Amino acid sequence: MIAARVERMEIAEAVMAAGAAPQACVRSKPKCNLVSRESQDQDTVVRVGDVTIGGPRFAVIAGPCSVESAEQMVATATAVKAAGASLLRGGAFKPRTSPYSFQGMGEEGLKLLAIAREATGLPVVTEVMDSGDIPLVEEYADMIQVGARNVQNFSLLKKLGRVKRPILLKRGLMTTLDELLMSAEYILASGNSQVVLCERGIRTFETATRNTLDLSAICVLKERTHLPIIVDPSHAVGRRRFVAPMARGAMAVGADGVMVEVHCSPETALCDGEQSLTPEEFAAMMAELAVMGRPLHREL
Amino acid sequence: MIAARVERMEIAEAVMAAGAAPQACVRSKPKCNLVSRESQDQDTVVRVGDVTIGGPRFAVIAGPCSVESAEQMVATATAVKAAGASLLRGGAFKPRTSPYSFQGMGEEGLKLLAIAREATGLPVVTEVMDSGDIPLVEEYADMIQVGARNVQNFSLLKKLGRVKRPILLKRGLMTTLDELLMSAEYILASGNSQVVLCERGIRTFETATRNTLDLSAICVLKERTHLPIIVDPSHAVGRRRFVAPMARGAMAVGADGVMVEVHCSPETALCDGEQSLTPEEFAAMMAELAVMGRPLHREL
Amino acid sequence: MIAARVERMEIAEAVMAAGAAPQACVRSKPKCNLVSRESQDQDTVVRVGDVTIGGPRFAVIAGPCSVESAEQMVATATAVKAAGASLLRGGAFKPRTSPYSFQGMGEEGLKLLAIAREATGLPVVTEVMDSGDIPLVEEYADMIQVGARNVQNFSLLKKLGRVKRPILLKRGLMTTLDELLMSAEYILASGNSQVVLCERGIRTFETATRNTLDLSAICVLKERTHLPIIVDPSHAVGRRRFVAPMARGAMAVGADGVMVEVHCSPETALCDGEQSLTPEEFAAMMAELAVMGRPLHREL
Amino acid sequence: MIAARVERMEIAEAVMAAGAAPQACVRSKPKCNLVSRESQDQDTVVRVGDVTIGGPRFAVIAGPCSVESAEQMVATATAVKAAGASLLRGGAFKPRTSPYSFQGMGEEGLKLLAIAREATGLPVVTEVMDSGDIPLVEEYADMIQVGARNVQNFSLLKKLGRVKRPILLKRGLMTTLDELLMSAEYILASGNSQVVLCERGIRTFETATRNTLDLSAICVLKERTHLPIIVDPSHAVGRRRFVAPMARGAMAVGADGVMVEVHCSPETALCDGEQSLTPEEFAAMMAELAVMGRPLHREL
Repeated sequence: MIAARVERMEIAEAVMAAGAAPQACVRSKPKCNLVSRESQDQDTVVRVGDVTIGGPRFAVIAGPCSVESAEQMVATATAVKAAGASLLRGGAFKPRTSPYSFQGMGEEGLKLLAIAREATGLPVVTEVMDSGDIPLVEEYADMIQVGARNVQNFSLLKKLGRVKRPILLKRGLMTTLDELLMSAEYILASGNSQVVLCERGIRTFETATRNTLDLSAICVLKERTHLPIIVDPSHAVGRRRFVAPMARGAMAVGADGVMVEVHCSPETALCDGEQSLTPEEFAAMMAELAVMGRPLHREL
Repeated sequence: MIAARVERMEIAEAVMAAGAAPQACVRSKPKCNLVSRESQDQDTVVRVGDVTIGGPRFAVIAGPCSVESAEQMVATATAVKAAGASLLRGGAFKPRTSPYSFQGMGEEGLKLLAIAREATGLPVVTEVMDSGDIPLVEEYADMIQVGARNVQNFSLLKKLGRVKRPILLKRGLMTTLDELLMSAEYILASGNSQVVLCERGIRTFETATRNTLDLSAICVLKERTHLPIIVDPSHAVGRRRFVAPMARGAMAVGADGVMVEVHCSPETALCDGEQSLTPEEFAAMMAELAVMGRPLHREL
Repeated sequence: MIAARVERMEIAEAVMAAGAAPQACVRSKPKCNLVSRESQDQDTVVRVGDVTIGGPRFAVIAGPCSVESAEQMVATATAVKAAGASLLRGGAFKPRTSPYSFQGMGEEGLKLLAIAREATGLPVVTEVMDSGDIPLVEEYADMIQVGARNVQNFSLLKKLGRVKRPILLKRGLMTTLDELLMSAEYILASGNSQVVLCERGIRTFETATRNTLDLSAICVLKERTHLPIIVDPSHAVGRRRFVAPMARGAMAVGADGVMVEVHCSPETALCDGEQSLTPEEFAAMMAELAVMGRPLHREL
Repeated sequence: MIAARVERMEIAEAVMAAGAAPQACVRSKPKCNLVSRESQDQDTVVRVGDVTIGGPRFAVIAGPCSVESAEQMVATATAVKAAGASLLRGGAFKPRTSPYSFQGMGEEGLKLLAIAREATGLPVVTEVMDSGDIPLVEEYADMIQVGARNVQNFSLLKKLGRVKRPILLKRGLMTTLDELLMSAEYILASGNSQVVLCERGIRTFETATRNTLDLSAICVLKERTHLPIIVDPSHAVGRRRFVAPMARGAMAVGADGVMVEVHCSPETALCDGEQSLTPEEFAAMMAELAVMGRPLHREL
């Protein structure tokens, strides 16, 4: 059925390329959007290795902003695993506002992620920025992240629809929830139904926090889509001491998990150190979430 | 000491009025802002009748958007009291975008609030919109609310600094947290230190919710001020079914309480019915908050 | 007819106060909003003394942010008059974020405005912040300004509807155009049809300018309302060197005038000096506007 | 010198890939950003075929949102050429929120653009969405556009830095001017100094227009960078009748040109018909701009 769907889109594109009446492509639209509750009432549970996102367990993705060295990755991965994290994050390709900022280690970084996975057993999540890098990232990552700045990079989304890995799709700083759902629709319509949405703060007039974490997005998305929703408080607030309370908030509102930045030595981090938890802070946050999860029937 | 403070401001104003060098008024500034943690490290606990806001108990203010009739007020007040609310809200003066919308019952509404208080023992919170109405509102209300649209109505704030009632100061739709704190400073600098801040959603590009509830504001405010902070999820989300999850989120992040709209018959409400909880929904929310409060050490 | 309108509102309010069915007040709504093009197709021309706003002439309101002294007011008024300004601005009551900032000279400031008017013949525009000050301001001002922070101070708006002075209503930092029109409607519905709207920048995520001047608001408002629209570039951009280009932009898009801050000595201004033009810069801007007005058929 | 710059970045990346200390790449930063006025005081003039952008002439780029057919392109191109446009626009790859909307004709569309160029002599501007399509687009286009959604697609920007075509870089809906300049810096730092910036409206709380056109961005950018700045009023306002006044505003504020959507038959357009001018409306706008340009010393 998925194949049929892809085919319909390809036919539509072929028809277009051949110069036929462009309206033709509208025929490929399903009765309702594939991401919608109308299309599928039951929650989607996404599998990443042995881990599930969207089921009763509350998923915690943790790790450094950027992959920097084997020592850093293994130390951080070991620490977050010990504290109960289910997945390891780390950026090898880094979208940076300035061309002179550290751009990530690229393939070398992917290799270090694989080493950390081997050392801990944690599946790894990492970002792809360029559709040309998809085969490379697919080879190393257990889950592929689309960053906030690429949420409407439709070429990339279409190509990720043809990939055999689950996708973590971050909301952009300027993306409405309708737009986020349509970006996810690009991936599903191209054949990949394993998509997790991630709220990570939107840009508003307020500058007291790096961005404004929109936790009500969880309510809206839970109503409209069957896809799992997680929250990244680290990028939203931009300050270490606000991460744990906002993670608790995300759980209380009904998120399926959180993604937080943890660094074995935040003060030396090449990127986003001021918002990274130390391993000790991360362990304390996990303990809080575990206790708070009980009345909410969410286990870590 | 408070009197001294007011006096200094008045002197400064008198100096100005007399045509003296305007810089003179700067002398009245305290070493640090009165609202700041530097000025007072210990949390302020605000008393409204027997109720405290800012201490270990989680305060719940509940009631209809507008006062409409004695039956509506007494029925709603009885229901929210039974479910564990600590204070009763209800608007007698209503700030409405259109001059043709219901503007509130005015003094008659204040009298109905007093009747509901007598029937239930709940202290009442109600809004004042015009500095000319302060004496009237002061006579009936246990706590006086400044609405989001008046958060920078500095004349009103100054006059509320001379009132013997605690003030509930709502953040505006586009008020930065710095501005909110400076608005509170107007009240404290004029002599009234009993101020509770209220996050109620800010205006952003997102239209899926009425406003965007900024729960990270709790973290920022808790760091910068000793004043209590509560959250109004009803106005923020604008839809009944999102109110309870966002109230849970507010508690989990660390708010000192919530203010929610409850109406004995939301479908006939003159104002904001779509975001008002029924008494049953409110009772269910209270039960959830009670359970969730345990691991967080917050009692209702 | 105006009296009839006021009366209807008062009756409605009386009915409410008497405890009658609140829906009663809805009867006072006119078939369409009084501010709308449907209600009046022809442009409203507002008269302030001998000056018109909304007709073929492009109105220029100029003067300092705050009234500070007789010398400052007379020097600035003389300079802006010489360069062709039609009205004089100056704040006696100043809405300031901090209670420790200069709050304006109050009545003394109003007297200095009157002196400057006498010296130059320019009608004066000044802000009222508190409904209790309306009689005082009315006595001195030729036009009464409602500041951005009071655009939804509905008590104030209603009372200004009963005043015999034209009103300059500034858009708030967070006010949609629909809301701005409804705020104007409060004034018209209470009996005062002499209202000029003023776009002065809205709050957005961008911090390179103080606010973001929304010149497309002119297009939208011209379509929806018959009221004149002017633009305040000074508060929007917050920097002296951007004021003249934005004033040209306002004229080119179709505004009926501009309001700009001019100070005889910006570096010593008590308020907003960095956005105030010197008299020389103001004269240069006027010369540019005069030339640019010709092909647009707008005379200064 | 440009080659040297590229080399430095490549060395930095090579160093990174080899696992060396990541700080190494910081060495490649020039003393000041290449886009800045400090780096180059004199305005950059970008050449597209015979046309210049950034010099004394006011550039007008016109054409349909999407390429739809040979007839449509040739008819529209002939009309805009006759009215005085300097460049032809038309999208072959279309970034659309929904995967079910018309996605553009792709290579076939590029061929139709080439036909329209041959028929009129107008250089063509078209968007590239995927770095994999750069060689194809480079073959057909005289100027390559980066759309608002790709303004922080840093992989794409780096690759466009190695292309021999001028780049039109559109500001994103939530891109600060600092970020826009850093995105341009990616292109310059990779070796391509022929970049034109384009303000096209930002996302704010206001919904009366599609976006909010930030004309003060022209002032800010002119101060900070030597690169030319044009304005796209069509996407900003989203309605045909607001396009001409906002184009006049852009010229009055100091833009180097405008880009407007024109369609020979807007009511049948596959995309954005409601904001496309008819050829007659476009000719009227051009006549207005020509007259208004005289006092501003801008020729079309």
